[in-house]
Amino acid sequence: MTDSQRIGVAVFGAGRIGKIHAGNLARHPHAQLRYVVDVHAPFAEELAAKHGAAVATVEQALADPAIRAVVIGSSTDTHADLIQRSAAAGKAIFCEKPVDLDVERARACAVAVKKAGVTCMIGFQRRFDPTFAALKQRLDAGEIGTPEMLVVTSRDPSPPPAAYIARSGGVFKDMLIHDFDIFRWILGGEAVSVHATGASPNLPEVAAAGDISHAAVTLRTRDGALCQINTSRRAAYGYDQRFEVLGSKGLLQAGNVRPTQVVAWGEQAISSDKPEAFFLERYRDAYALEIEHFFDALANGTPVRTTIEDGIKALELAELATQSWREGRALECSV
Amino acid sequence: MTDSQRIGVAVFGAGRIGKIHAGNLARHPHAQLRYVVDVHAPFAEELAAKHGAAVATVEQALADPAIRAVVIGSSTDTHADLIQRSAAAGKAIFCEKPVDLDVERARACAVAVKKAGVTCMIGFQRRFDPTFAALKQRLDAGEIGTPEMLVVTSRDPSPPPAAYIARSGGVFKDMLIHDFDIFRWILGGEAVSVHATGASPNLPEVAAAGDISHAAVTLRTRDGALCQINTSRRAAYGYDQRFEVLGSKGLLQAGNVRPTQVVAWGEQAISSDKPEAFFLERYRDAYALEIEHFFDALANGTPVRTTIEDGIKALELAELATQSWREGRALECSV
Amino acid sequence: MTDSQRIGVAVFGAGRIGKIHAGNLARHPHAQLRYVVDVHAPFAEELAAKHGAAVATVEQALADPAIRAVVIGSSTDTHADLIQRSAAAGKAIFCEKPVDLDVERARACAVAVKKAGVTCMIGFQRRFDPTFAALKQRLDAGEIGTPEMLVVTSRDPSPPPAAYIARSGGVFKDMLIHDFDIFRWILGGEAVSVHATGASPNLPEVAAAGDISHAAVTLRTRDGALCQINTSRRAAYGYDQRFEVLGSKGLLQAGNVRPTQVVAWGEQAISSDKPEAFFLERYRDAYALEIEHFFDALANGTPVRTTIEDGIKALELAELATQSWREGRALECSV
Amino acid sequence: MTDSQRIGVAVFGAGRIGKIHAGNLARHPHAQLRYVVDVHAPFAEELAAKHGAAVATVEQALADPAIRAVVIGSSTDTHADLIQRSAAAGKAIFCEKPVDLDVERARACAVAVKKAGVTCMIGFQRRFDPTFAALKQRLDAGEIGTPEMLVVTSRDPSPPPAAYIARSGGVFKDMLIHDFDIFRWILGGEAVSVHATGASPNLPEVAAAGDISHAAVTLRTRDGALCQINTSRRAAYGYDQRFEVLGSKGLLQAGNVRPTQVVAWGEQAISSDKPEAFFLERYRDAYALEIEHFFDALANGTPVRTTIEDGIKALELAELATQSWREGRALECSV
Repeated sequence: MTDSQRIGVAVFGAGRIGKIHAGNLARHPHAQLRYVVDVHAPFAEELAAKHGAAVATVEQALADPAIRAVVIGSSTDTHADLIQRSAAAGKAIFCEKPVDLDVERARACAVAVKKAGVTCMIGFQRRFDPTFAALKQRLDAGEIGTPEMLVVTSRDPSPPPAAYIARSGGVFKDMLIHDFDIFRWILGGEAVSVHATGASPNLPEVAAAGDISHAAVTLRTRDGALCQINTSRRAAYGYDQRFEVLGSKGLLQAGNVRPTQVVAWGEQAISSDKPEAFFLERYRDAYALEIEHFFDALANGTPVRTTIEDGIKALELAELATQSWREGRALECSV
Repeated sequence: MTDSQRIGVAVFGAGRIGKIHAGNLARHPHAQLRYVVDVHAPFAEELAAKHGAAVATVEQALADPAIRAVVIGSSTDTHADLIQRSAAAGKAIFCEKPVDLDVERARACAVAVKKAGVTCMIGFQRRFDPTFAALKQRLDAGEIGTPEMLVVTSRDPSPPPAAYIARSGGVFKDMLIHDFDIFRWILGGEAVSVHATGASPNLPEVAAAGDISHAAVTLRTRDGALCQINTSRRAAYGYDQRFEVLGSKGLLQAGNVRPTQVVAWGEQAISSDKPEAFFLERYRDAYALEIEHFFDALANGTPVRTTIEDGIKALELAELATQSWREGRALECSV
Repeated sequence: MTDSQRIGVAVFGAGRIGKIHAGNLARHPHAQLRYVVDVHAPFAEELAAKHGAAVATVEQALADPAIRAVVIGSSTDTHADLIQRSAAAGKAIFCEKPVDLDVERARACAVAVKKAGVTCMIGFQRRFDPTFAALKQRLDAGEIGTPEMLVVTSRDPSPPPAAYIARSGGVFKDMLIHDFDIFRWILGGEAVSVHATGASPNLPEVAAAGDISHAAVTLRTRDGALCQINTSRRAAYGYDQRFEVLGSKGLLQAGNVRPTQVVAWGEQAISSDKPEAFFLERYRDAYALEIEHFFDALANGTPVRTTIEDGIKALELAELATQSWREGRALECSV
Repeated sequence: MTDSQRIGVAVFGAGRIGKIHAGNLARHPHAQLRYVVDVHAPFAEELAAKHGAAVATVEQALADPAIRAVVIGSSTDTHADLIQRSAAAGKAIFCEKPVDLDVERARACAVAVKKAGVTCMIGFQRRFDPTFAALKQRLDAGEIGTPEMLVVTSRDPSPPPAAYIARSGGVFKDMLIHDFDIFRWILGGEAVSVHATGASPNLPEVAAAGDISHAAVTLRTRDGALCQINTSRRAAYGYDQRFEVLGSKGLLQAGNVRPTQVVAWGEQAISSDKPEAFFLERYRDAYALEIEHFFDALANGTPVRTTIEDGIKALELAELATQSWREGRALECSV
């Protein structure tokens, strides 16, 4: 394949996640990283140099007809603007979650994407995790009959700085948005009721930032399937990412991933590794597979699995959960 | 120990659970089974014969001064009456859960017990399960710091007949009363809010009986500890009894018990046993240990671990959960 | 059943294992413990009192026609004599392993048993362990096709006193005799070659007693099935009793049993319980089930599963392994 | 880094393993794949094209001074010749196991390497497996005290074609050479005795090829540490690669790796994935890490972890095991 046949790509954001996407797309036979854009010039230069790409501004990147796709990994407050401008420029878009913290603004992005007729994929990488994806495939194949109940455990090893929490949109939009997407993906239906409650045990700094560190959410679909999500900003034993779905004929469990399979039998106990340290390690394969999927879809003209509509639905649930928690009551809804 | 020094016991109810309690107390060095009482004479006779006891009426049993304790394993609608009469007769009481389906009537029993000054233990056998008890001990020893979040999975292999469901008091009083006790026991605090929702996916006969087969409950303590309970009347893979508690310094998990430790590595998968079939198998040791505890407490004059107050508190939570589910809203409470 | 219809039993040996057998047979509906015999009078008295039996001498017990069965749990050096005398008196015999440390003497016992036409069961309790027995049943049902290779791990928590080791007959007769029985039971064939080697790393006191603490044995059956046994007198993590058998269609593994199913997720690792502490705990059920089997067989006139011939075959393998280790060479054999 | 500063590499062999090494070295910042050599031209062309390298003959590759290292992944019978010629040409060498099937010839290679003063690393990739390497690191850190006993389970999913077996050098040189290397690496000592036995149950074609499919090997070190290796050419449940080491203070186990962490709870059993399918999947990371290590060592001038001496030691043990099996006796040795 000649360079001119490949899909020229601009990456917006050269931070942690931008680097990962850049590294992954560099391995794709149909993608070619051409520009790196970042407000912090040294970051852009370093990443561009590593992959033989050039540093550019947003305008330059979007003006170049060789750029057929953009990967948005910049800060959340830039997502909506970049989506709208990229859509207007006719570029295919891969954007990190969330579309925006404001639901109205996110909806406007969806309208822009639809109007432009471009592909827009939101980075719900968990759907690409080999364990989660295998579970979903087996569920869809009917292995456990109809799904009836989903239990999701989603915990971070330790809370981010208070400053981050204050502008994060709150735990439901910042952390649980992934779990709301898991809910919709696994149960295959929309919520008709949402209840959320929470607290910040032993984490006064989270409460001081107007947020909660621990949350318990219950969702119900029109079909009567139930979902419980439990989360916390701190788990002393590390990053905990599990879910299990009860069906009419059995249960499918998606467990944590351990760095090694060493088991130590000692004088006190038998012990194995803690889970993979954090999302970059836990979802290493998932990040690679979602980018592969995006460029495969572009190359083959097939639809992407996680659309901007998925991004908005998850955001709406996060908003409702936030409201439920703040008002202390369950909400009827039809997301 | 001579017979006259042992604690004479009457067992009320010679059904499945009565037989188990009779067998267990027969092994206790301080207990002596003297009477078996059952409305169905052949049951009473068979059980009495097996243990060298006599068949009697409630009146006869309670009138005999040699009877110092009663074990109530008869049907739920007889519990309150038997508790009140036994208390009035000065007998120590071991009674299966629930005290009664009606909270007011249960409270009246507590008053009667208190007035009589007799010991009254409610059969929350799960607290005596070796796995659950070991977890609780380690929690109390501070191994994971302060408890912050409890997730309970409690599922039956298959639903009881519709006729049973109709008079069971509903899933919250019939099944989850045990889980409400686990909540109080593990988190060590009372609920300030309760939210319950449910459905009967694929089980129209349960819905027809006015009940739900699947329920999701969320509780919150005054200290901000959260609890999620998920339950179902049917789990194709068997009886599922697990919980896990997140603390500020780690997590403690109580897993299912398997009949054997055989693992088969086959052409399709690596497989191990399903959990113990149902509560009689799963809690075999727990049933023995709770009876041992009751008679140890009587012999030593020490308090019992699961009192009639515990029975009432769990019942109150079941009542609130039922109301929350029926009304579709979260309830503030102070149980 | 009246007392005269029950099988009168004398227990020889009121030590640790004698107490366990007495307790178990006391629960059997067809057995009645009548005499306890022990050279140490207080032991005999205590155990007899506990079960409402009388203290007796060997002569008295064997002379009483009401005694139809004996349970031999006295020291190893008394087994052969008691077997021969009990057989001569026409009593059914349950005897702890080994029959004797001397193969010739053990064979003489088998001759005596055969001549007397009495039942004689040797206490290879592991065959009655629920996990091991379930594995065997599944193997026999063809779940993994033909067995081809057996790997046995058999380790004690810590070595016995040097004085015990010196008179134990050595590690092969003292510890591995159980594993040789597992080999014969699981692979269903006799050995045609035996190789054993060993050492006493970090345990000079074992070497000083003329024994080894760690041994590795390899056996081969006529059919070409292979077996490796690894053992040690010390495992810092406790009592390790596992085996796994590879068949033409899969693998069956028999794992250790843990006291509880608690799993702790901590800052360093995820940990579960060590195995059950030692043989009395690990094989609690097995001891009960083997005694139940013995009295069931007597009551029903059916054969016992572990005969004196099994005891001799295992002893012969232990003798060959000892020789192989001492001479440093593999031995052809036809046990 | 400019191209002229990078380490020019020629890959010999463009088959399955050659492709893997080429892919891995292409990602190394200090390595540059320049030539691909293969007797089958289309294979060489395809692999060269993929990595922007040229097709060459052995002569051309070795004559080019820009080539500083060679990676030998061609058929076993070419290894010795290529090692000797590469050493003579002053190239650093990475060679797949075994050095040669003939021990004398392998030793001649070691002499040639030493004389030339070049780096020569043998591809014992298992030492680089994250699980095995983590175990080794913890062992070396003293976590379980002194190693006393090693049990290795090493089984292939299904036997190779009879034609392959016939020229493979036999199961000990073809399969177990990896396990002999594990023995030396983990126990950190050389063997003083070797015993091997085997059979070909249900695999007459293996026996017809003069080999065995199932083998049981026992090794003993000078320090009295024991090792048992069990192997088979067929395991219906897949590729089985485990070992465990007993130390004076505990046990460390290295388990299989599963493709996903999905667990299915069904009506019959609870089941998880079989192990990774075969060596290419199981040791994917290990293959990448060994190549990274090789080029890191070249770039930094540090020694490699698996030398040609390691290759010869493992080969000597394979030869001794073959002899032990053929002669039916244990062999003293001082490898």
